[in-house]
Amino acid sequence: MENGKWLVGIDVGGTSVKLAFLTEQGDILHKWEIPTNKANKGESVIQDIADAIHSKLAELNVPHEKLKGAGVGAPGPVDTEKGLIFEAVNIGWENNYPLRDLMQSAIGVPVAIENDANSAALGEMWKGAGKGAKDLICITLGTGVGGGVIVNGDIVHGSKGAAGEVGHITAVPSGGYMCNCGKPGCLETVASATGIVRTAKDLLAVDESESKLKEVLNNTGDITAKDIFVAAEAGDKLALSTIDSLANHLGLALANIGSVFNPEKVVIGGGVSQAGSLLLDPIEKYFKKYAFKPVGESTEIVKAELGNDAGIAGAAWLAANKI
Amino acid sequence: MENGKWLVGIDVGGTSVKLAFLTEQGDILHKWEIPTNKANKGESVIQDIADAIHSKLAELNVPHEKLKGAGVGAPGPVDTEKGLIFEAVNIGWENNYPLRDLMQSAIGVPVAIENDANSAALGEMWKGAGKGAKDLICITLGTGVGGGVIVNGDIVHGSKGAAGEVGHITAVPSGGYMCNCGKPGCLETVASATGIVRTAKDLLAVDESESKLKEVLNNTGDITAKDIFVAAEAGDKLALSTIDSLANHLGLALANIGSVFNPEKVVIGGGVSQAGSLLLDPIEKYFKKYAFKPVGESTEIVKAELGNDAGIAGAAWLAANKI
Repeated sequence: MENGKWLVGIDVGGTSVKLAFLTEQGDILHKWEIPTNKANKGESVIQDIADAIHSKLAELNVPHEKLKGAGVGAPGPVDTEKGLIFEAVNIGWENNYPLRDLMQSAIGVPVAIENDANSAALGEMWKGAGKGAKDLICITLGTGVGGGVIVNGDIVHGSKGAAGEVGHITAVPSGGYMCNCGKPGCLETVASATGIVRTAKDLLAVDESESKLKEVLNNTGDITAKDIFVAAEAGDKLALSTIDSLANHLGLALANIGSVFNPEKVVIGGGVSQAGSLLLDPIEKYFKKYAFKPVGESTEIVKAELGNDAGIAGAAWLAANKI
Repeated sequence: MENGKWLVGIDVGGTSVKLAFLTEQGDILHKWEIPTNKANKGESVIQDIADAIHSKLAELNVPHEKLKGAGVGAPGPVDTEKGLIFEAVNIGWENNYPLRDLMQSAIGVPVAIENDANSAALGEMWKGAGKGAKDLICITLGTGVGGGVIVNGDIVHGSKGAAGEVGHITAVPSGGYMCNCGKPGCLETVASATGIVRTAKDLLAVDESESKLKEVLNNTGDITAKDIFVAAEAGDKLALSTIDSLANHLGLALANIGSVFNPEKVVIGGGVSQAGSLLLDPIEKYFKKYAFKPVGESTEIVKAELGNDAGIAGAAWLAANKI
């Protein structure tokens, strides 16, 4: 067995909990998942996690003392200093659930907690696309749009722990679609997988010209973000307009944050980012157009590298740096 | 003479240098100004400052040992760690001028330097409208629009020292006026004194209805930001529309930064902010409209309190905290 202690990275999601043992340098040694038991407001989740860790140690014949500590990324707003999660709707935890202390008692090692999007951002900073950078904006384009902002090597939490809400930047100041957050025009309404599909449908409704997406819609009754990227790859004009619209909104929002933060890198992750340069190139074009010049020239727009491992890597970073 | 050491606050401007001796708690004891001698690329400015400090000490019969150190706010992008100012166009300094070390040798005390807008933001945090807050956005509405962003009690510098450029957020994504920075549509083009006058003139050109501003323009050949606020105060519709347009742009920009930073306060200063609640109330209305809800509910929009003293107060904060 290698020297040094192990870090435990824990990424709590609404469906499963991702777990890993990592070296103190953040290399994953063992990685596994357990289902999230949401019964009774998620009351067994913490014990399930502790049991899983202890079983895995036994299975590997590794003593408990090998563990330095654990980090936890959880889906909700977190008070990192007090170790509380205000609520985690997807799991059932509520009323300032004392996540850190409960986890610490159950596992038997020091624990640090963080919001899951922030944890993923820290993971990309430590071991992924943001490696080496201390000033970073991370944005995740999935069903929703999440984000984490890192200044001077640490997450920006803001005065009420609500910082980093890149998805709720107002991208469409008037006439925008209503967002799940209760405010119209959020970046999430135009830059998420849901948003891009809606944009394509809106364009289809007014555009008379030929488009593969029209066929897909007629044949299957719906279109997906993936359909849009496949059509765009083949040169479909309406699909390319849809992506251009997304890139324009996203480039503007990122440029405006960029002019204020002057990040070294902007890391773009999530399912939608799988489109690669088809999406990243136009985002970069609009970023440079809208950003304060020294920022536009110096900021790199890069694709996230860790995928689903970003959360556990960031959680392990917490265990290495915050306990 | 009171106990404790004195801090020296130095605010270098293109016309004059503001100087002060302050207590370690940031209270101003003696304040004065000297002209900025821009001859020969500002080569005598540092010695002039040192001479002014030494003469004042002699005049007050206070020994040099009373000084703990000095902070300097200077008009240009600064590398605070290396103590360099990349350039200061308004003074003549260029080529990574080693401001800190030169100032240290000339005055004979430890020195810390900062960009002047950031220094003013630190001053408002320490002794002004931001007192007690650790997460703060400061914006100055004058001939241009400047800013400073404070996270966790310290200035955000970003990867190239270009952070805080609130004035160069793109507020008008298409069809905006060209900014001095070379990019069209910057917040500065609509929210500065110059910008608001231009907005009023644009409205006058297309609006047929009566307005006091039309009279002012006809009588004097021009209008000023002050004319607009005076007319608005008296209920002039076009003047009120002008302010509403400014407030809409500014509220959106601040809300979008706010959703990412979650500041405790937004501090608005500079000549234009003298309009008081006539301007601040609509800014707050639009801020709440566009911000992520928890941010809109928790962020206070306040008027700067220190006026021209913000820079020396912030410089003194540097002397207290950064040397």
